[in-house]
Amino acid sequence: MALDSAAAETFLAQLARECHSRGWALGTSGNFSAVIRREPLVLTITATGLDKGTLVPEQFVRINASGTVVEGSGRPSAETALHLLLAKVQRAGAVLHTHSVWSTIISELYGNTNGLWIEGYEMLKGLNGVKSHTHREWLPIIENDQDMARLAGVVEAELARRSEAHGFLLRRHGLYTWGESPEQAKRHLEILEFLLEIVGRTRILAGYGVR
Amino acid sequence: MALDSAAAETFLAQLARECHSRGWALGTSGNFSAVIRREPLVLTITATGLDKGTLVPEQFVRINASGTVVEGSGRPSAETALHLLLAKVQRAGAVLHTHSVWSTIISELYGNTNGLWIEGYEMLKGLNGVKSHTHREWLPIIENDQDMARLAGVVEAELARRSEAHGFLLRRHGLYTWGESPEQAKRHLEILEFLLEIVGRTRILAGYGVR
Amino acid sequence: MALDSAAAETFLAQLARECHSRGWALGTSGNFSAVIRREPLVLTITATGLDKGTLVPEQFVRINASGTVVEGSGRPSAETALHLLLAKVQRAGAVLHTHSVWSTIISELYGNTNGLWIEGYEMLKGLNGVKSHTHREWLPIIENDQDMARLAGVVEAELARRSEAHGFLLRRHGLYTWGESPEQAKRHLEILEFLLEIVGRTRILAGYGVR
Amino acid sequence: MALDSAAAETFLAQLARECHSRGWALGTSGNFSAVIRREPLVLTITATGLDKGTLVPEQFVRINASGTVVEGSGRPSAETALHLLLAKVQRAGAVLHTHSVWSTIISELYGNTNGLWIEGYEMLKGLNGVKSHTHREWLPIIENDQDMARLAGVVEAELARRSEAHGFLLRRHGLYTWGESPEQAKRHLEILEFLLEIVGRTRILAGYGVR
Repeated sequence: MALDSAAAETFLAQLARECHSRGWALGTSGNFSAVIRREPLVLTITATGLDKGTLVPEQFVRINASGTVVEGSGRPSAETALHLLLAKVQRAGAVLHTHSVWSTIISELYGNTNGLWIEGYEMLKGLNGVKSHTHREWLPIIENDQDMARLAGVVEAELARRSEAHGFLLRRHGLYTWGESPEQAKRHLEILEFLLEIVGRTRILAGYGVR
Repeated sequence: MALDSAAAETFLAQLARECHSRGWALGTSGNFSAVIRREPLVLTITATGLDKGTLVPEQFVRINASGTVVEGSGRPSAETALHLLLAKVQRAGAVLHTHSVWSTIISELYGNTNGLWIEGYEMLKGLNGVKSHTHREWLPIIENDQDMARLAGVVEAELARRSEAHGFLLRRHGLYTWGESPEQAKRHLEILEFLLEIVGRTRILAGYGVR
Repeated sequence: MALDSAAAETFLAQLARECHSRGWALGTSGNFSAVIRREPLVLTITATGLDKGTLVPEQFVRINASGTVVEGSGRPSAETALHLLLAKVQRAGAVLHTHSVWSTIISELYGNTNGLWIEGYEMLKGLNGVKSHTHREWLPIIENDQDMARLAGVVEAELARRSEAHGFLLRRHGLYTWGESPEQAKRHLEILEFLLEIVGRTRILAGYGVR
Repeated sequence: MALDSAAAETFLAQLARECHSRGWALGTSGNFSAVIRREPLVLTITATGLDKGTLVPEQFVRINASGTVVEGSGRPSAETALHLLLAKVQRAGAVLHTHSVWSTIISELYGNTNGLWIEGYEMLKGLNGVKSHTHREWLPIIENDQDMARLAGVVEAELARRSEAHGFLLRRHGLYTWGESPEQAKRHLEILEFLLEIVGRTRILAGYGVR
């Protein structure tokens, strides 16, 4: 199966610029990938160290299942191992990683409980497979780690228990989400960011005994 | 009566993109409609599941009073029944439904009182028929429901009691507002979103005994 | 003295669109004017009821010192009397009126003291005539009133006592600021909005005994 | 060594417009410079008093090590002495000075301790030379002063003790940051602004005994 790789890169580059504009991918943070072939696996992913505010399709590199560049110049993102893992174990067609203010704050606020429940919001229905606002979504939070192989192992173990998850937070680091397609992954990103901002702001209001 | 449907769709598509940019219609949420014929009723409405950040006029479908598509491709929004209801009982010429962070938070914060009063703000004068900042506006809050027919019944009953309303919130879901024209509906949307943000932020400040 | 009226209208239309984008002039709120002749006075001002997000120079009307339209179509803004007043008593070359979330909140928070001191910020140096961050700026707050003639009288009396002011707030309404030129008025607008947001956010933090 | 001065000015003008749009350089605040020659030193820097929302490369002036204009028209920024100092003692290739809401608030909130520690965030890894999120970054805060020569002396003394710093705050004034290149300085700016917003918002949440 070969997807339209140029379309995926154009879509993700536009999304990256939009994320930068919203403050979700400042300072060269964030990385974006899409599966462009399944057998054997080929992933197109943003090269490392790029300003997402000016990202163009030419700044993606294509890698195989081992993370080796098979096309394009530049080193793939340092977090490539997590993208490959999600492409495999979650069957993700696209993986998005962003660093927003609210996702970073929430990742610490609920860090000690290893995640948080989000429930009762209509917006949850935009997550793939969710049919009602009464849905309870568990968003795992995983300790940050500079050892990518070790971190990938922890993520894999967590997702084995929580395969229904649509994303997870790395503590004091940021959000990972994915989808069957780049479009669905974008939808998941916007929904999770929206809900995390609501969780944060509601906590502030709740402090006054309002609820 | 036949309105200029192309102009309405162009206006609403531009408005949808603007709402997406402001974070009021993320993750394919939100839907937008305008009456393009009264007798018999024809409504143009955003098709379901679309990214509002790239919405174009071609992504609207036209439906009759029963919700059947009479022109265009794509399924109409899942919340079509509410749009049709508002076109009929409120004589709305355009209906806007958005999901902002503040409207979602406020819909929960005042959910148990089934609504909130907003009063004393100059901005209220932008609501159709309001002549002074001393006006008291009741913004109803209605429990969210996945059963659209049942929800439409509840909304209809509420608006029978509150026909002077310019909008309402669905709890943990979002805002509905409308106007005689798309332009007036846009004005109402911006005003209600503005006031809901003020209500929320003022509650945070008020926690300190400031007022 | 005849200023370049086309340039002033182009500048103010661009500024109005920018204010709308920032959420400072939503829902057709806000109005913008510039003196284009001093003797006899001619003011160009936004016509009433316009969406500031799409404002163009053609949507200004020119009025004389009595507020009568001498050129252009459309009714001048309902708050024309305040613009004319500021052009006369403050010798303003341009007057800007906006409705931001923070200015509205602050106008209520300090409403009972009829104003607030802002001091110690480097940003104050951008206000015309201010030479040091140690400057203390008094921002008057005036009760809102639908009787424009009466309101203009109150504003005039207040400015007679506070002629050094660079702006004032109308309570639960918004900000007025001005400058010798449209460019200087824009600078004052951005500075006052910036400082009001800081005052508001600092109050929230201060609630915890931080300062 | 002669760098491409036109490219640096184009990059910084674009960055200035982006900072203005984000609210980090309102009201003609902020200034931006790059070293375009090392021996003898030539710095290109924004002229004073310009609206950053419309900044173009032609609005930079080139100065020598004494701050004398060697090319271009307009007076260099009033804070030129700090830019020159950073170019010399930190070997900065570009210096950015911005006035954001959060940097101003934090500069006061931690003003009495002369700085703040920021640690444990993945985003810190975007600062030059930082390898792990466990890094502790000290961000010095220096009292504001209208005497530029005296202020430059204080900054120089502080940086002699803290040469590893990537930026500093002037109290109730704003942020200075720098980098080997304009691109690296932009990265540092976005990262520090992001982290300061997190510090501020986390303090608000922390008030509830959450952490």
